Amino acid sequence: MIIVLKPTATQEEIDHIVQMIEGHGLRTNVSKGENQTIIGVIGDKTKLANTPIASLACVEEVLQVSKPYKLASRDFQPYDTIIEVGGVKIGGGNLAIMAGPCSVESEEQMMIIAEEVKKAGANILRGGAYKPRTSPYAFQGLGEAGLKILRQVGDRFNMPVISEVMDTQDVKKCVKYVDILQIGTRNAQNFALLREVGKTRTPVLLKRGMSQTIEEWLMSAEYIMSEGNKSVILCERGIRTFETATRNTLDILAVPVIKEKTHLPIVVDPSHAAGVWKYVIPMSLAAIVAGADGLEIEVHHDPEKAVSDGAQSLKPHKFATLMAEIKNIAPVIGTGKNL
Amino acid sequence: MIIVLKPTATQEEIDHIVQMIEGHGLRTNVSKGENQTIIGVIGDKTKLANTPIASLACVEEVLQVSKPYKLASRDFQPYDTIIEVGGVKIGGGNLAIMAGPCSVESEEQMMIIAEEVKKAGANILRGGAYKPRTSPYAFQGLGEAGLKILRQVGDRFNMPVISEVMDTQDVKKCVKYVDILQIGTRNAQNFALLREVGKTRTPVLLKRGMSQTIEEWLMSAEYIMSEGNKSVILCERGIRTFETATRNTLDILAVPVIKEKTHLPIVVDPSHAAGVWKYVIPMSLAAIVAGADGLEIEVHHDPEKAVSDGAQSLKPHKFATLMAEIKNIAPVIGTGKNL
Amino acid sequence: MIIVLKPTATQEEIDHIVQMIEGHGLRTNVSKGENQTIIGVIGDKTKLANTPIASLACVEEVLQVSKPYKLASRDFQPYDTIIEVGGVKIGGGNLAIMAGPCSVESEEQMMIIAEEVKKAGANILRGGAYKPRTSPYAFQGLGEAGLKILRQVGDRFNMPVISEVMDTQDVKKCVKYVDILQIGTRNAQNFALLREVGKTRTPVLLKRGMSQTIEEWLMSAEYIMSEGNKSVILCERGIRTFETATRNTLDILAVPVIKEKTHLPIVVDPSHAAGVWKYVIPMSLAAIVAGADGLEIEVHHDPEKAVSDGAQSLKPHKFATLMAEIKNIAPVIGTGKNL
Amino acid sequence: MIIVLKPTATQEEIDHIVQMIEGHGLRTNVSKGENQTIIGVIGDKTKLANTPIASLACVEEVLQVSKPYKLASRDFQPYDTIIEVGGVKIGGGNLAIMAGPCSVESEEQMMIIAEEVKKAGANILRGGAYKPRTSPYAFQGLGEAGLKILRQVGDRFNMPVISEVMDTQDVKKCVKYVDILQIGTRNAQNFALLREVGKTRTPVLLKRGMSQTIEEWLMSAEYIMSEGNKSVILCERGIRTFETATRNTLDILAVPVIKEKTHLPIVVDPSHAAGVWKYVIPMSLAAIVAGADGLEIEVHHDPEKAVSDGAQSLKPHKFATLMAEIKNIAPVIGTGKNL
Repeated sequence: MIIVLKPTATQEEIDHIVQMIEGHGLRTNVSKGENQTIIGVIGDKTKLANTPIASLACVEEVLQVSKPYKLASRDFQPYDTIIEVGGVKIGGGNLAIMAGPCSVESEEQMMIIAEEVKKAGANILRGGAYKPRTSPYAFQGLGEAGLKILRQVGDRFNMPVISEVMDTQDVKKCVKYVDILQIGTRNAQNFALLREVGKTRTPVLLKRGMSQTIEEWLMSAEYIMSEGNKSVILCERGIRTFETATRNTLDILAVPVIKEKTHLPIVVDPSHAAGVWKYVIPMSLAAIVAGADGLEIEVHHDPEKAVSDGAQSLKPHKFATLMAEIKNIAPVIGTGKNL
Repeated sequence: MIIVLKPTATQEEIDHIVQMIEGHGLRTNVSKGENQTIIGVIGDKTKLANTPIASLACVEEVLQVSKPYKLASRDFQPYDTIIEVGGVKIGGGNLAIMAGPCSVESEEQMMIIAEEVKKAGANILRGGAYKPRTSPYAFQGLGEAGLKILRQVGDRFNMPVISEVMDTQDVKKCVKYVDILQIGTRNAQNFALLREVGKTRTPVLLKRGMSQTIEEWLMSAEYIMSEGNKSVILCERGIRTFETATRNTLDILAVPVIKEKTHLPIVVDPSHAAGVWKYVIPMSLAAIVAGADGLEIEVHHDPEKAVSDGAQSLKPHKFATLMAEIKNIAPVIGTGKNL
Repeated sequence: MIIVLKPTATQEEIDHIVQMIEGHGLRTNVSKGENQTIIGVIGDKTKLANTPIASLACVEEVLQVSKPYKLASRDFQPYDTIIEVGGVKIGGGNLAIMAGPCSVESEEQMMIIAEEVKKAGANILRGGAYKPRTSPYAFQGLGEAGLKILRQVGDRFNMPVISEVMDTQDVKKCVKYVDILQIGTRNAQNFALLREVGKTRTPVLLKRGMSQTIEEWLMSAEYIMSEGNKSVILCERGIRTFETATRNTLDILAVPVIKEKTHLPIVVDPSHAAGVWKYVIPMSLAAIVAGADGLEIEVHHDPEKAVSDGAQSLKPHKFATLMAEIKNIAPVIGTGKNL
Repeated sequence: MIIVLKPTATQEEIDHIVQMIEGHGLRTNVSKGENQTIIGVIGDKTKLANTPIASLACVEEVLQVSKPYKLASRDFQPYDTIIEVGGVKIGGGNLAIMAGPCSVESEEQMMIIAEEVKKAGANILRGGAYKPRTSPYAFQGLGEAGLKILRQVGDRFNMPVISEVMDTQDVKKCVKYVDILQIGTRNAQNFALLREVGKTRTPVLLKRGMSQTIEEWLMSAEYIMSEGNKSVILCERGIRTFETATRNTLDILAVPVIKEKTHLPIVVDPSHAAGVWKYVIPMSLAAIVAGADGLEIEVHHDPEKAVSDGAQSLKPHKFATLMAEIKNIAPVIGTGKNL
């Protein structure tokens, strides 16, 4: 932490701050520049978490130097985390391809789609049972009945399954059915929920908040990890910007940034980023070559009749085309050894 | 709803869409322009919620005409909603001034601050017991012990109290202690929580999500209202933009937009918008003349020692200055009759 | 400037950077923390402008401490700049009320509007002759003929006039006719144009770029001032964000931030921020109480027939209402002594 | 164009609007819904450009249906535009690889870099002579002397050259030296400059404005094309968002959106998007597989000594690695037949 003082700061004020900091058991390094004095703070800055140095009249700015996340940081663990669910590896050069419908609608629907995506090369089955809908009047998901169908169909095709949990009260129930718990973008800073899934030992896919910085996103991962659950998969799904031509703006740069800052795997959800199925294939390929550890893609055999997100769902034959292209491209950049 | 077709759409495709829509019991109005055909849909569009018209190959765009919120709309209720808590009216020309510390720290702290803000003219006491902190390692609030202190001090000074709830499992407990339940910006689309507070009859202050559009914000209000709780107070607290000179960007334009679109009262939180105490007074005055029904302001007698948000807390004498200015300005625009 | 090194930086690397910096005639302060070494740079950092320290492999981050603007900074000049045009003072507790149509359409139109706004209390007349339109097919302004009308009508009503200049080749011509040169939001970083108006001695109203940070905006002012023209008026006109309910988002917080960082006056343009006339009055009042030194407002006697921006223009009687409210509110916060 | 009326609109008001529109020689289609009346406008809407229908009291919203750009639209020209400069094709399955330093510094520097990038496979040489710098005190480029060097070195290596023009007064001079005129992000809506380069017949690379929507960007292209210059290359170079971990956010989704809406080629500038050299390779590959027609990349043999943008410049051996990967990946998606 670096404290930049105003040019007008007096020696008395400087001494006051130095005493305040050293009173918390930290060391300081005072550097007088031509216009301004700067105080460097050495030691464990969490001791100052509740000391509002920035509010002192003589302080111009407080700059953070250390990263606020620890367990999620690559400084803490230099090698890639590899998460294994039901025999499928995520991270470390393996590609996780999660595919399936936005919502679980029926056993028949899930059987049709699972068969198709499995055949094309998907290795994890997705399907929503609890749906976060902008409108209270829209279809809200089948709930536990949906989870049961998802589990059955996953078992039938020998695919681990992933589904979203939205309420702390549903976590225990979801853990019984799914292999990966998904936290949606709107709950990316629902800290009660993050803590609750952190108490389980089920891997968690953590979607980035719609307007969450990369640093805040890693802090959300830290919430989960600080409760003991180290199996966190990050998911970039588009951020909110001024552009309205697409549902969201896919922050593709987040992929290499995340690979640099953390050891956790990252997957990309091109369906929610684009909001339109025809952009899903190019965005999927872009994610892979940018270094993503996998994809989460919405696939539906009959998008016109899908109860949610039909507009952004790929039909199975398009998904198969995409998988063929991924298999060609992945080796060029040395990934996808599991496909 | 208006469906804009591509210039290449065939008569067969047009007929297909018309049948699809009419099959749901709605009427259509087909208008052939020079380049494009447009289909207007007449009737209750919620019947089409699960029909992904936008994904059809011949459709260029689907434009929404009707507002997706109903109970929250001024079309539904033209006159201002006035919410009354413990004798304090919110809305309809009355100003609600909610003041107090970010976090409840101790009974002594609350007593000192409550006495000061009451004397200056605040009519509702705020204080956080459950704190949404970006870091899992930061102070997380006193929990139920904090709620008890808040209640006691509120009763002592005859002030209704407001505090944040973060988890569906805490709603029942919070309702026992507080007069207004606060939903924070990070939970603005935590639909499970919105439903849960909607089931109570305790008024809810709903902060706008950091990157929530005004329409989505009203949809969050609709979630609460659709469960039967009509007492929703909206709170603009700054949105996230590219500007980093301030913690957030106060969307002051949201105030008149909200007054036009909904009958619900709106208050402004200048403390979180600015993130720096010295901008709180001008922003508070701006909110009042823009038409806000009140303010939520962080006040602390000793910001240097506050356990959270000290940098943006006003000292009591500054708060008193602000209240004096509000009392001078409010009558000019015909508000604040209760002050 | 502060250079944060990676935890892995070697002594050799540290020495290399120190030598590099000292080779430019600057001093360093090396501080070894528990995890990381930090190098403070003391002296004139512009000497390092072309040294890409951030690109060195051992550097994690480079933090700027000094402000990059000088002439525009309040550190450079602590008292408020007051600009005087044709007897009207701008800044220092005086309110500049610039009103008039978006486009100069005809002498008759200008006469009608000027008479009305003058009567209501406006002290500067606005009118566009060169119009920056998103479409090349839209009305582009009357050009020099428009400037002549504006000048004549301004003289007739004894009002200084302001109009936009868009091309370096038009600056000399514009200077002959107008009292204030306006730089539009789309040219806020047209550095050739900034330099050119900086070479004149005509005051310049500099609109903030649509997505310009406050610091970058002050750097644009610095471009003008560095050429010798110290009479710069800043104009907040709304920034671009994700919200689409209004044309732009009025960054009202920019007003107190600007008052703190610079001695230059700031006015607010609520018409372009809102894009809808009915929000102009509340936003104007908000700007004044937030501390703005004035307003720039679009007024048209017949908005239905205006050739541009009719939707956001106030009718004269609404403008008169606004002026009456400003005269009541301004004294409360100690401004508007000239009204 | 579709005009949505308020539920309270009277028959008289509806008739007034219909007359107004038909008075401009357009046809209308009035559709009365259950709550609201909607008026569709049929015919050439540019006739209504100066009629502010949205400002009428009875109008709730005006929705645009037709695209505002014509010459740039794929409806106007369905096949891909291929631009040829000095034997290099841009568009239509050919990849344009523009590489070189941010600034032309000296003939020696240009010779070294040109030799390296040519050898690795670049086909166009870039180098800035007029530099748009945020600070007036930073290096502003060598001007015409820089253009001369660029031309000489380009000729020597048989590479067409591209350089930025910032002022209408410099266009004629630049045309003498360069094969492609570049318009920078800060001038993306400098309409005077767009018109001026539109009057030449030299191809123009048009960078997207930092906060320009895709539609506005195409309108800027339309400005150039409407003056007769049809050779416009679009360049996505990152947009401004709330994320600060990278210099900009690369809007990779813009690539397929642009390919759908326009026949003009699009290239991506990963250097300015990322702002850090180490993210340039993954972003370049992502751009290619997303469908871009080429790249503009900053390369410098000695980034530590570059006078500008050293931090984001690739060293020649890294650029060679990138080119090798592109040659492997491009055929998979059927592009780069010219490499």
